[in-house]
Amino acid sequence: MKYCLHCASPLVLRIPEGDDRERLCCDNCNAIFYLNPKNIVGTLPVYENKVLLCKRAIEPRLGKWTLPAGFMENGESSLTGAIRETKEEAGASVTVMDDCLYTLFNLPSINQVYMFFRVELTNLDFTPGYESKEVALFNEQEIPWSEIAFPVVKSTLEHYFKDLQNQHFPVRMFDVLHEKDRSITIHLVSIQEKVD
Amino acid sequence: MKYCLHCASPLVLRIPEGDDRERLCCDNCNAIFYLNPKNIVGTLPVYENKVLLCKRAIEPRLGKWTLPAGFMENGESSLTGAIRETKEEAGASVTVMDDCLYTLFNLPSINQVYMFFRVELTNLDFTPGYESKEVALFNEQEIPWSEIAFPVVKSTLEHYFKDLQNQHFPVRMFDVLHEKDRSITIHLVSIQEKVD
Repeated sequence: MKYCLHCASPLVLRIPEGDDRERLCCDNCNAIFYLNPKNIVGTLPVYENKVLLCKRAIEPRLGKWTLPAGFMENGESSLTGAIRETKEEAGASVTVMDDCLYTLFNLPSINQVYMFFRVELTNLDFTPGYESKEVALFNEQEIPWSEIAFPVVKSTLEHYFKDLQNQHFPVRMFDVLHEKDRSITIHLVSIQEKVD
Repeated sequence: MKYCLHCASPLVLRIPEGDDRERLCCDNCNAIFYLNPKNIVGTLPVYENKVLLCKRAIEPRLGKWTLPAGFMENGESSLTGAIRETKEEAGASVTVMDDCLYTLFNLPSINQVYMFFRVELTNLDFTPGYESKEVALFNEQEIPWSEIAFPVVKSTLEHYFKDLQNQHFPVRMFDVLHEKDRSITIHLVSIQEKVD
């Protein structure tokens, strides 16, 4: 980012008055540009004891399997965005449960927040969209565990199959940290307590 | 937004190849600019039977009472952002509970997502920061209900005092809709079921 979006003047990196961190500032029109994390919203689509996964037709992680998810757009809610991505990537229609919010992941190293919602496939009329090579249903044993595209997807699937045994699906939030040795660690931040 | 951040050429609003909605595109350097919702993260700081509120010293809603909250920054998680805002706006140190995630609000009309976390004040050493005129503790009866800055704050407070009676604090997500007559309606999207 080098030039002002409003007046095309060169931007300067400095701490604006009343702020405590460097921002891209325009000294011509006084605009300040803030960079904030983006939300990625997706679903965990369930049919009987199986979940729907998409084989990625695009980079990153081309050829790996993922849950349908994508960037939340302006003008939509996180759930409607997740349903839209499920339609776009898997051609799937879904039914939403009252307790659909399921996992949230903060990825501070790459300025992203993921949110996954549990949904039920309305029918078996799914088909790969532009960003998918293949869409299929898998039970726990069938899931290509070593071919999952992203740690947040793998974590969501692992928790889902454990929670399925208890028939209790608590909302969980995690921090995903990219360590210096390039390993990734996932830390539980919040979990809804089970009420006795 | 009129000029490219990278090369200062004029931007054009059009649908890029493979996309389905208009984006700001640069036909000189081929950059595409995506606009996405921003997250606002905050806390509901509790001390005994009281909650901490801040009287706003800045617009919007100058002079109204709010929970400490602000834009999530790049490089932080939503919870660490909420704790940072609580320190900045109320000078308050907090202790985080295992089930801290509490309310989420999608505001599609203004491209925002709010997240509030329940936390406990570590001590009574709080003091107004730059953006607050006053910081104080209120029990349910003392809260200036007609002077609350934002509907998402009022909703979070209302649910908190109801949940306090049941000692059960489910994670709730809402859509906040700005209607054509300028009224605001709040719709429950997801609630963690109570387990028997």
